[in-house]
Amino acid sequence: MSRLTRASARALDAGDELAPVRDEFVLPDGVVYLDGHSLGPLPRAAVERLRAVIESEWGDGLVRSWNTHGWISLPERVAARIAPLIGAAADEVAVADSTSVNLFKLLAGAARLRRGRPVILSETGNFPSDLYAASGAADTVAGLEVRLVPREQVVGALEETVAVLALTHVDFRTGEMHDLEALTAAAHDAGALVLWDLAHSAGAVPLDLDGAGVDLAVGCGYKYLNGGPGAPAFAFVARCLHEAFETPLRGWMGHAAPFDFDPAYRPAPGAGRLRCGTPPILSLAALECGVDVVARAGIDALRRKTMALGDLLVRLVGQECAEHGFVLSSPADARRRGSLVSFRHPAGYAVVQALAARGVLADFRAPDTIRFGLGAAYLRFADVWDAVRALSEVMSRREWDRPDRHARATVT
Amino acid sequence: MSRLTRASARALDAGDELAPVRDEFVLPDGVVYLDGHSLGPLPRAAVERLRAVIESEWGDGLVRSWNTHGWISLPERVAARIAPLIGAAADEVAVADSTSVNLFKLLAGAARLRRGRPVILSETGNFPSDLYAASGAADTVAGLEVRLVPREQVVGALEETVAVLALTHVDFRTGEMHDLEALTAAAHDAGALVLWDLAHSAGAVPLDLDGAGVDLAVGCGYKYLNGGPGAPAFAFVARCLHEAFETPLRGWMGHAAPFDFDPAYRPAPGAGRLRCGTPPILSLAALECGVDVVARAGIDALRRKTMALGDLLVRLVGQECAEHGFVLSSPADARRRGSLVSFRHPAGYAVVQALAARGVLADFRAPDTIRFGLGAAYLRFADVWDAVRALSEVMSRREWDRPDRHARATVT
Repeated sequence: MSRLTRASARALDAGDELAPVRDEFVLPDGVVYLDGHSLGPLPRAAVERLRAVIESEWGDGLVRSWNTHGWISLPERVAARIAPLIGAAADEVAVADSTSVNLFKLLAGAARLRRGRPVILSETGNFPSDLYAASGAADTVAGLEVRLVPREQVVGALEETVAVLALTHVDFRTGEMHDLEALTAAAHDAGALVLWDLAHSAGAVPLDLDGAGVDLAVGCGYKYLNGGPGAPAFAFVARCLHEAFETPLRGWMGHAAPFDFDPAYRPAPGAGRLRCGTPPILSLAALECGVDVVARAGIDALRRKTMALGDLLVRLVGQECAEHGFVLSSPADARRRGSLVSFRHPAGYAVVQALAARGVLADFRAPDTIRFGLGAAYLRFADVWDAVRALSEVMSRREWDRPDRHARATVT
Repeated sequence: MSRLTRASARALDAGDELAPVRDEFVLPDGVVYLDGHSLGPLPRAAVERLRAVIESEWGDGLVRSWNTHGWISLPERVAARIAPLIGAAADEVAVADSTSVNLFKLLAGAARLRRGRPVILSETGNFPSDLYAASGAADTVAGLEVRLVPREQVVGALEETVAVLALTHVDFRTGEMHDLEALTAAAHDAGALVLWDLAHSAGAVPLDLDGAGVDLAVGCGYKYLNGGPGAPAFAFVARCLHEAFETPLRGWMGHAAPFDFDPAYRPAPGAGRLRCGTPPILSLAALECGVDVVARAGIDALRRKTMALGDLLVRLVGQECAEHGFVLSSPADARRRGSLVSFRHPAGYAVVQALAARGVLADFRAPDTIRFGLGAAYLRFADVWDAVRALSEVMSRREWDRPDRHARATVT
């Protein structure tokens, strides 16, 4: 292959059908943002929308805005907008609470649907917070337990004791993607339900939950859906389970008739019963703007560009940083990874700090993983070039080996 | 007593030490806002604060703001600010999730602390969403059940089977206040824990949870704490329970070391373990502004003014609307009610609509209750006069008996 230059990257940008979408985000000058897997950037539309929600709807409208400005149906509207991104029907999705809280709802609900099967099966390397949620469910629901096995032993561990197989679709360290269809089928063959955490998938990878027969899923609003820090999460329950599914977390917003103030609980239809307390309207309004950008850009186009960005990144690191000891920890085949490309390096933490000092924002996961999140809605191919050149210079000038680096924690 | 006039009300305003606090809120012209028990108004400081959080912190700071702008410690900061308002220490309070979700955490946690005692005891008239949360806990934790008795039978029902007595401090219909100290002591005498829902108390009524020996409590951010629509809620766990208390809902923000990504769950110290997923920063920033106004105004001064506003309202309805058939459903003694004054009237729903058409915002609860919320931080005594005059005119002109009224649901 011929050597790539910045002009090659710019040529890719010139042919990029999604290039105009970048203008829909507020991005600071001098920053290459490779941390959208942690927090998506601010959609330009959210600035005005939030001003209206705060000043006109809350300030002037006050409590009337639950009706006059449709706050009451906002969770449903956002759910309906997310549904097609994941191959679901609108009534299969609820926007509510956090990913962790939704995991608990679905794990406890799954255990109830598979009573007599005591095991939540997951993989050892699952995102830790998912494992905390599972441990909470196991300590709360009598007889339930968590069994963790290494990734490659998951299928073999699908015994008849398993109530639910709970996995994260795209690995948070490596971006490696599970075969969602095959594992869903394998779980079903064993009589188990399957619960997918789509935190690193939703908004980046097209999904067909209904086509694959997925039972349950959760996902995150603040990564590739660009919903803002701590945006509400979503949960999915397949329609065939709607009749039987019971949520442990019951609140008035998941009641069939919240304003009847009926002392008896009666679940809302479909996934709507997964709503619980009063929804955080400011955060929801921001999420609606973020989802809207993704939906209009088109999830298939985003996926194509993500793969191209990742392939470029991998190739450029090989070309520009060959002597610096970076080891690709993501799948080399773009079809097998999500929107994250990771490299291992012994000085990874310091390298990420040195990159940040140059305005290239990536992040680090112990012990030695550098993660580059490829937000196709706003990244340019030239950004990838610039990031890799920065990386090359950080290494050749030993910028990472400086005393002025400081501790930094980020929210995945 | 001599007949009151608008001048009498204005004289009270002239002597009101809290009068300047009103300027800290954005309130639309022509509105008398008696719905702060449902949604507190917009604190002026929140407008600028949210603009900064959105445009500077999210927009420019991006993921770095978790550290550089202290997002990561925002839940703790707000909890520490709420704590003195309820007579708690900072490490006894967590700001997280919704009231309904927090109720589940505490009910399931309480059941675990009183294993062998199967009953969640509450009152028939408790806020329905609290009963839904209890039913969810009972259906999730083996052997747990909900027992509901009428208000006056609660003490008699404190048998040795009761794990936790779960009550709402201020009744959502009548504003009647339970004797928190006496009921807490009675629950303890029976070996039960007590869980108070402070939704209609926090920010309106001074509380001394530690002094009363309260075990557990939850509360709402969007009523008298003025945190905005769907603001995060809070939860309280007494320090003496910190060692033993386990939450069923476990997420990384309640872990002792979230950024260690330890696969094993290890709870954060104190009430901090009640945090779960990533907190909604926009909604939290608004809540911080709302709590700040209350804290600076002073909860004791707010309480004194609330009682005076309520007494004025009751007296004026007697004076101006005597012939219109309103029946006070709140306690006449201000010390026995919270911040809500309610009247029953057969045409209550239509009367509330007619008042709204005049800019007097109260709300309605079926079958016949009109609720007036007395937000002492921003209401003037003259507002109470104007509201009662409007009520009198609505009745004498039969404005409530018009066809143009329309359905209206509000969030309590």
